[in-house]
Amino acid sequence: MRVVVPFAAENPKTRLSGVLDADERAAFARAMLADVLDAVRNAGRTPTVLATAPVDVDASVRVDDRSLTTAVNAVLDEDDGSVAVVMADLPLVTSAVLDRLFDADGDVVIAPGRGAGTNALVVRDDEFHTDFHGASYLDHREAAAAVGAEVTVVDSHRLATDVDERADLVEVLVHGDGRAATWLANNGVRIERGNGRVNAVRVDD
Amino acid sequence: MRVVVPFAAENPKTRLSGVLDADERAAFARAMLADVLDAVRNAGRTPTVLATAPVDVDASVRVDDRSLTTAVNAVLDEDDGSVAVVMADLPLVTSAVLDRLFDADGDVVIAPGRGAGTNALVVRDDEFHTDFHGASYLDHREAAAAVGAEVTVVDSHRLATDVDERADLVEVLVHGDGRAATWLANNGVRIERGNGRVNAVRVDD
Repeated sequence: MRVVVPFAAENPKTRLSGVLDADERAAFARAMLADVLDAVRNAGRTPTVLATAPVDVDASVRVDDRSLTTAVNAVLDEDDGSVAVVMADLPLVTSAVLDRLFDADGDVVIAPGRGAGTNALVVRDDEFHTDFHGASYLDHREAAAAVGAEVTVVDSHRLATDVDERADLVEVLVHGDGRAATWLANNGVRIERGNGRVNAVRVDD
Repeated sequence: MRVVVPFAAENPKTRLSGVLDADERAAFARAMLADVLDAVRNAGRTPTVLATAPVDVDASVRVDDRSLTTAVNAVLDEDDGSVAVVMADLPLVTSAVLDRLFDADGDVVIAPGRGAGTNALVVRDDEFHTDFHGASYLDHREAAAAVGAEVTVVDSHRLATDVDERADLVEVLVHGDGRAATWLANNGVRIERGNGRVNAVRVDD
């Protein structure tokens, strides 16, 4: 099974701009990507980074500057076997979680992201194509139904947690133990533990 | 195994006040409770509602007006066997998800909620006590370690999704098929599907 990890190489994670500046967001995005690549390898697979621009990373890189949807569909079109797509902003994924994804039955296996997105996919049907705009989880279910592909949904908080905004950093700090969690700790991002809601705050020394 | 479902009977879900008025919040909270009770029964267990005030519901009710922590610990103290605690605001839980929770090994099984909370627990250690204030997921891990209890974590988006605020309604509308999802649909709460983020909006006729 081919495993591709789409990665937005330029100006990533703008919704974290209230916490991290542009260079920091780039470094944090790279730490999350490294966590995902580690998890894929620990699950016994060889990842390919599908990047919007050349990126210096310890994995093979395929550059495609078109939209995420177009770039992923190009991979699906040229591969006759099964293809897995795992987003690069999922620093909580582990090999155990990816085993659940890769081993799930179904022509199309979907791990939903919070907010109706799609955070990971396994595609075993040649007619299925992706569409990552908007409510892609619902769109992907409809696209699978349209080509008669059976869908399996993987229920995982770790796979559902794509990191886009400040509240998502809480999940990384609470559940992460990889490079992204370490990067946050080393850069003064902590959780604030009161008696109410838990927030991620920046404690600059 | 005893299964208790804590339920705040009075003025529930205040953080949904931007979408639902007080009566609506009460009705929606009851719909979520009914979904949880259905899932527990479909998993082959008999739930007890642990309510802060008398509540008319199709299940046995134990009223305890003390804090959630105190009320749950009182149940743990009087039971020598294993006790499961499943929060009432988890309308995405299914019997399959609860099977994963109930069947997981470990002296203490924790299903984290988003934001460092605890959404469900199985307690098989007499010395373990709960503390639901603040970052209870971390507190419960520490409390388990302090009494030498082995912890297992259940990784489930459905169990991690407690419904407190508007963004959580998106999850109910996208993934739910029970009474809470139906209640929202019948009361004009829909998801708005553009090309960007998906929101829950109210479409009053």
